[in-house]
Amino acid sequence: MYEMHFAVPMAAAVLNAINTRLDAKAVAVILRHAQAKVLFVDYEYVRLAHDALQIMADAGAPVPLVAVIDDIDRPTGVRLGLFKLEYEALVSNGDPAAELPLLADEWDAVVLNYTSGTTSAPKGVVSSHRGAYLNTMGQLLSWGVGNEPVYLWTLPMFHCNGWTLTWGMAARGAVNVCIRQNRAADVYRAISDYGVTHMCCAPVVFNILLEGKARRLTAPVHVLTGGAPPTAALLDRVERIGFKVTHSYRLTEATGPAMACEWRHQWDLLPLPERSRLKARQGVSVLSLADANVVDDNTMASVPRDDKSLGEIVLRGSSITKGYLDNPEANKKAFKGGWFMTGDVGVVHPNGYIEIKDRSKDMIISGGENICSKELEEVLLQHPAVADAAVVAMPHPHWGETPCAFLVAKDKAAEVCKDEVIAFCRERMSRFMVPGKVVVIDALPRNALGKVEKVKLRDVARNLVPSVVSKL
Amino acid sequence: MYEMHFAVPMAAAVLNAINTRLDAKAVAVILRHAQAKVLFVDYEYVRLAHDALQIMADAGAPVPLVAVIDDIDRPTGVRLGLFKLEYEALVSNGDPAAELPLLADEWDAVVLNYTSGTTSAPKGVVSSHRGAYLNTMGQLLSWGVGNEPVYLWTLPMFHCNGWTLTWGMAARGAVNVCIRQNRAADVYRAISDYGVTHMCCAPVVFNILLEGKARRLTAPVHVLTGGAPPTAALLDRVERIGFKVTHSYRLTEATGPAMACEWRHQWDLLPLPERSRLKARQGVSVLSLADANVVDDNTMASVPRDDKSLGEIVLRGSSITKGYLDNPEANKKAFKGGWFMTGDVGVVHPNGYIEIKDRSKDMIISGGENICSKELEEVLLQHPAVADAAVVAMPHPHWGETPCAFLVAKDKAAEVCKDEVIAFCRERMSRFMVPGKVVVIDALPRNALGKVEKVKLRDVARNLVPSVVSKL
Repeated sequence: MYEMHFAVPMAAAVLNAINTRLDAKAVAVILRHAQAKVLFVDYEYVRLAHDALQIMADAGAPVPLVAVIDDIDRPTGVRLGLFKLEYEALVSNGDPAAELPLLADEWDAVVLNYTSGTTSAPKGVVSSHRGAYLNTMGQLLSWGVGNEPVYLWTLPMFHCNGWTLTWGMAARGAVNVCIRQNRAADVYRAISDYGVTHMCCAPVVFNILLEGKARRLTAPVHVLTGGAPPTAALLDRVERIGFKVTHSYRLTEATGPAMACEWRHQWDLLPLPERSRLKARQGVSVLSLADANVVDDNTMASVPRDDKSLGEIVLRGSSITKGYLDNPEANKKAFKGGWFMTGDVGVVHPNGYIEIKDRSKDMIISGGENICSKELEEVLLQHPAVADAAVVAMPHPHWGETPCAFLVAKDKAAEVCKDEVIAFCRERMSRFMVPGKVVVIDALPRNALGKVEKVKLRDVARNLVPSVVSKL
Repeated sequence: MYEMHFAVPMAAAVLNAINTRLDAKAVAVILRHAQAKVLFVDYEYVRLAHDALQIMADAGAPVPLVAVIDDIDRPTGVRLGLFKLEYEALVSNGDPAAELPLLADEWDAVVLNYTSGTTSAPKGVVSSHRGAYLNTMGQLLSWGVGNEPVYLWTLPMFHCNGWTLTWGMAARGAVNVCIRQNRAADVYRAISDYGVTHMCCAPVVFNILLEGKARRLTAPVHVLTGGAPPTAALLDRVERIGFKVTHSYRLTEATGPAMACEWRHQWDLLPLPERSRLKARQGVSVLSLADANVVDDNTMASVPRDDKSLGEIVLRGSSITKGYLDNPEANKKAFKGGWFMTGDVGVVHPNGYIEIKDRSKDMIISGGENICSKELEEVLLQHPAVADAAVVAMPHPHWGETPCAFLVAKDKAAEVCKDEVIAFCRERMSRFMVPGKVVVIDALPRNALGKVEKVKLRDVARNLVPSVVSKL
């Protein structure tokens, strides 16, 4: 995957890294929507790829050429597709003297990243060479990455190109340390074996590192986190071990980091609760992005810098996506007056730091993965016993959040079997998306215009306990 | 000057920062060639500006509007020009709500920097917004400047916009500490009073710091140096005091840094002579520059990476100058096949680091200032007793190099008074350019094509001692 971040652009092609946590159906939707020409698949995911390609073939869709990336140390011999291609064999047959095509236009697409794939209108975010380059530079500067870091890949590279650090680590001459799973023992072993200096992760990885036998580090490890800010308690515990946490706000649509909570030296002197409160802010726009702002989404006027006035967080600049691939509807909604509308609601502090107060209404962030509630609702409505459905986020002790599904039964007299609904979801969506809780109610709360009042549902969900605690 | 780096581009104008060490004639040539519309002048330089404007007026050239920047603490009241404008008064009359013009094209000029001004064809280097932005980002990354540095301006801002750090320090939220002169006592006082973390300078400033009462620093100060690499002995002495030296290669034509000797951690373990040898290399291209190479200047083919094969150092990328203003001749010579020809001769080491072996034949670097030998020769040839003249660099214990002038007398029998020649130069050029030595010879060594063999003159000059030791 790391090599692909250089090889694919160098071949003047567009890289579409696919989330390995998706199910075969979602992978098939993405491959088809992206019109993928070649699929490189790691030997561990050959079954998933096989099923996805079968779905495509069954639907009469053109199937990409496949090359399997086998284990170098212990080759499995597993192959897929018509030509039984294997990655290392292809590489060794390559011509080192081949002339590379020059980039015609720096605004040309370099990567395509899907933020949702299971609906009828997948959202494939197209980023340009220019945007990726600038955001990589900005990420390195805002995180303060020096020369020759040792970087541990706890963050999957399919998450918006590892928040641009696939390229960024090459730019800093890093050692890249890769592990297959974020098991506490593997992470601690990699840190001590290789002298890891930097890593990225969602706060859920902190839970993993603390749930296992937390070890005190012998040298500080700089951790960039995002998605949700770590709680004060969590921050305290990981910082005591030796992790130095930086909080950033990133968006696939911004080709990675959009804002970072750039740390002021003077804040080091504050007590932990205060530091944690400051670190929870999303911060200021990274240098490579022209601008981040919080506005009234009708007038597009800036809200005052008063800690209190709510507005929508909007972004603009070179690294903002060129748009969603073949999705004019989504593109129309996403942009306004040259700004990208994040859907996140925030305030601006007097020092100019932005803080999110309410996540985009349709987004649930579970273990670092974004889940679109609309996608879940579409699946739930396919269930024969379900008349109406709404999904919101609820707290989860391990994953941070998990989806909570509110259902209305078609036949009020009949019982809806919650376990059966969950099993129904499992068959139709990636496991990380499956609701952690199903609640049957008489009717969804709707306002005068007929719109579901999700605020009310979130208030209910906030006090519930997920019935499915471990989903993976 | 610092404010001008933001105010002028924000007014959609082009900033032309003028070297205060130039004489009135050179300043007049630059103001006229640049077609300057407004001249902001510090109160200390009102006499110089007055004389320059007088030269322009006498020649019938249009004279720019003038605003004096007076001392805020102790106003001198000195004014210049028709309207007696004063900078702070202008600022306080400004409209904070004024709409700023948007940049139409990022390739538009942002700064104009003269590398030579006394010849008949001044070389005014035009840099774009795009180039300045990218080079600023690259400079911060290659030097590893973190957040909230405390930066001491030992490097004049008129030297290629402070090697882009005028903008770079704003981007990192720096405290800018300004001193009027690089006196050892002032530098050490600023370091201890403000907790300086970063500064830039030519190696000559190290001499100043060591000549005075060198103090051991209480915290390390990162110093970026360029022009000439510091000698091992000098490096040893400044590092013992607490300065951490990074060596870079910069060029006004590259809008600042072009290469930096990016330091490998493993080199820290080497003994001083070896570290000094490595640090003397110009290094690798900064991230924001597309490419630096060493080529055969006829075929433009890369030289092998063998420590030995000499070639011309060439550069290309977004931050390379758009060209010299109104100087088609210089532009024709400067570019070849999309590359900027630096005129410097170097080798490539097996690890890819570039090292200069011979400076551009026409350039003498004295106390951090570039002196074009051709300019001096033009002046010398105006002397009634001089038939032929060639100027090369000779070593100087304080300034690093100084010009050494070889003269041929018109009347072989008559004596040429060397002191009189030097006095003649003093009247006609900026003081830092005046030759440190004048040598009268029977004839200049010339090759079959009639070209002066400067290599031979440099061999002679290498063993001479300057007769004028202190020039300023």
